[in-house]
Amino acid sequence: MAGDGTVSPTKVVIVGGGFGGLACARALAGKALQVVLVDRHDYHQFTPLLYQVASALLTAPDIAYPFRAAFRRAANVRFCHSTVSSVDLDRRIVHTQGAGDIFYDYLVLATGSENNYFENASLAAHTLSMKTLPQAQRLRNHIVACLERAAQASQESERRAWLTFVVVGGGPTGVEFTGALIELLKLVLGREYPELAPTLARIVLIEGADRILPAFPERLGRYANTILRRRGVEVLTRSLVDRATPEAVLLSNGAEIASRTIIWSAGIRATELAGVSGAERTRTRRLQTDDRLRLPGRPEVFAVGDLASVATNGGELPMLSPPAKQEGRYVADAILGELRARPLRTPFRYRDKGTMAVIGRNAAVASIWRLRLTGWAGWIAWLTVHLYYLIGFRNRTVVLVNWAWNYLRKDRPIRMITRIEPDPLTDEPGPSAAS
Amino acid sequence: MAGDGTVSPTKVVIVGGGFGGLACARALAGKALQVVLVDRHDYHQFTPLLYQVASALLTAPDIAYPFRAAFRRAANVRFCHSTVSSVDLDRRIVHTQGAGDIFYDYLVLATGSENNYFENASLAAHTLSMKTLPQAQRLRNHIVACLERAAQASQESERRAWLTFVVVGGGPTGVEFTGALIELLKLVLGREYPELAPTLARIVLIEGADRILPAFPERLGRYANTILRRRGVEVLTRSLVDRATPEAVLLSNGAEIASRTIIWSAGIRATELAGVSGAERTRTRRLQTDDRLRLPGRPEVFAVGDLASVATNGGELPMLSPPAKQEGRYVADAILGELRARPLRTPFRYRDKGTMAVIGRNAAVASIWRLRLTGWAGWIAWLTVHLYYLIGFRNRTVVLVNWAWNYLRKDRPIRMITRIEPDPLTDEPGPSAAS
Repeated sequence: MAGDGTVSPTKVVIVGGGFGGLACARALAGKALQVVLVDRHDYHQFTPLLYQVASALLTAPDIAYPFRAAFRRAANVRFCHSTVSSVDLDRRIVHTQGAGDIFYDYLVLATGSENNYFENASLAAHTLSMKTLPQAQRLRNHIVACLERAAQASQESERRAWLTFVVVGGGPTGVEFTGALIELLKLVLGREYPELAPTLARIVLIEGADRILPAFPERLGRYANTILRRRGVEVLTRSLVDRATPEAVLLSNGAEIASRTIIWSAGIRATELAGVSGAERTRTRRLQTDDRLRLPGRPEVFAVGDLASVATNGGELPMLSPPAKQEGRYVADAILGELRARPLRTPFRYRDKGTMAVIGRNAAVASIWRLRLTGWAGWIAWLTVHLYYLIGFRNRTVVLVNWAWNYLRKDRPIRMITRIEPDPLTDEPGPSAAS
Repeated sequence: MAGDGTVSPTKVVIVGGGFGGLACARALAGKALQVVLVDRHDYHQFTPLLYQVASALLTAPDIAYPFRAAFRRAANVRFCHSTVSSVDLDRRIVHTQGAGDIFYDYLVLATGSENNYFENASLAAHTLSMKTLPQAQRLRNHIVACLERAAQASQESERRAWLTFVVVGGGPTGVEFTGALIELLKLVLGREYPELAPTLARIVLIEGADRILPAFPERLGRYANTILRRRGVEVLTRSLVDRATPEAVLLSNGAEIASRTIIWSAGIRATELAGVSGAERTRTRRLQTDDRLRLPGRPEVFAVGDLASVATNGGELPMLSPPAKQEGRYVADAILGELRARPLRTPFRYRDKGTMAVIGRNAAVASIWRLRLTGWAGWIAWLTVHLYYLIGFRNRTVVLVNWAWNYLRKDRPIRMITRIEPDPLTDEPGPSAAS
């Protein structure tokens, strides 16, 4: 759509390389148009396994895949390592930090989500999270550092505080992390910290609803609850967190838990990006798109994944990878259809393949079509699906080796405090949109 | 040696868990004395492979081993995660940051070495190094970031500067890193950076002596030189670096090379630790010990590894892992001998097993006894020896898988920019002694 009379290929700019953006870019690879994928990281992160990085089951590179490797054979896809500062929808420009302006014919917004602390500044300041690899690695470092500090503490109350871990939010992320954390503590504390009695450790899982895994069938939630309790987790349902400090978490019922580690997994909301206007925002800030994932009045601007709220027959779709991937592919098809003057006839329709969550060794819950799996069967289903969806044969191999090692040897060899010296070239840019 | 009449076990404090300190602690594991190993990191790093982390061949956890895992079965060895601020040799106390004072009967100083910039502040400020895992990971991040910046640069001179890498120092570390870096650039640039012509990249290896690998037999140095040049490295011998800036390196002959990446591998010196006195320091700050690795007049204080200079028949020993390990074991034997009232009869004697350096794919040099290996034979010898000395079956397995993948697929899947969010508990303490 170049204005000077020459024919230049249609240009699609995708902002964000999470599941939605990556699926869209992959579906456009090798096609007769130009694609620019912009992300502030140079790799795609496999978010469903971030909690395993945080709990020392996997290393960060195990679940990261460089964008440039993903598009090595796609001459029409370019990667731009940058943070998008704003978009200009009228002039069809994406403004980046350091990489200049990028013009587009089609824009795909896939900037994902961030933690939602519901305007509670103390929670934002004093809780840890695991939405990104840098955060997940920090959480692992923090947990190991707590064990070391506990080993050096002279007072028992100090040791207890260092060894108390509070997880806020009993959804899949909170449940999976809690299960992995109690395994980590059990395997490591008794054997490797002779200074510390394993009974000093305490893990509390806090959920506002009347049961954990509220989005799952009730039987599965009850099973997860039983397993976690049996393994030593204190599960507090119908409990709300009021405030966090560096040394404690305060519940709305007045209870106070002394802890140096409060993990936030109780809410996320869509990211904001300067210049994105014209679409209503939902309660969790998601952009209300039409049923073809377009912004109202902007047929050339799409939103996918956590950022987008597309009304389907079953109500709003969850902020999970399967809808994001399906939406990314749908948008690619829609663009290709317009390019060939054969627009898609049907609006986006989500095919629900089910949900699952692992609780730990030999225990998971899975809800697949009408199937309800628990225990070992659910665990095998979980392992298979996650290995299958992980990108890259090498990553699959290394993850499988790590899982087998951890399972058979009952070991967590990656539990250590790693640091990276800061470098001016790679400093994290400020709060940004592209995830 | 408790003064109050009760019998408490002899206490050995080891400062630093590098090759020397770790070997000493391992030789004392399970014996009838108490051992405290103090280190500012909670893992032992396998320094000979740090350059592979810096060149995206391996991940950081591949070459790190948690101290607590190493001494899981040794009830008499305690790990103390702390930085030693000073020692009081008269009162036999080690002062730590945060972990209190530790009394000792025997003290083993194994704090290693740090970069030696020969009082040149510009080199200290503007060069990158790979003495520690945090530094090696920073270097990898930096290199990948340079490729991304080059891809975004609009001027060719800019792109050239981003793609020029200068390695100062043609010893084993410099040669090994240079060889790995040119392979990385060759594999990645052409295939994954369509924006960049591979011919823009430049690697310069600078050595002050008249040949690279000056400590190796001449034929091996010549071989390394030939291979590096053939693969595209500019080798400048008899060249000294005068000054570094953020954008260039200036040689003493007046030449200037525009580069954003200057890697220092031209000199190291022993670390300093407050309170260590009574021993002379050598040119590289090493502590001059007696022939039993003791500080003069302090029969209960030993120094091993890079920190110690022990005069042997062949002159000063190199700052490498084999002397450190042999010294650590010797000190353990000496302490055990005194404990059993059967002091060692012989002074420390170094058994030289040879040296080796890998230049890259199918090419290495090895000098083992009278054997001089180059090419494929040297390469196989190098791989075998390094896999053998790596600690931990898991680490060996994962390193082997990574090497095989990189070799067979001609790939560098770990080349990405990773970050770790800072955490107050795990912030790097200031410049410290315990490595």
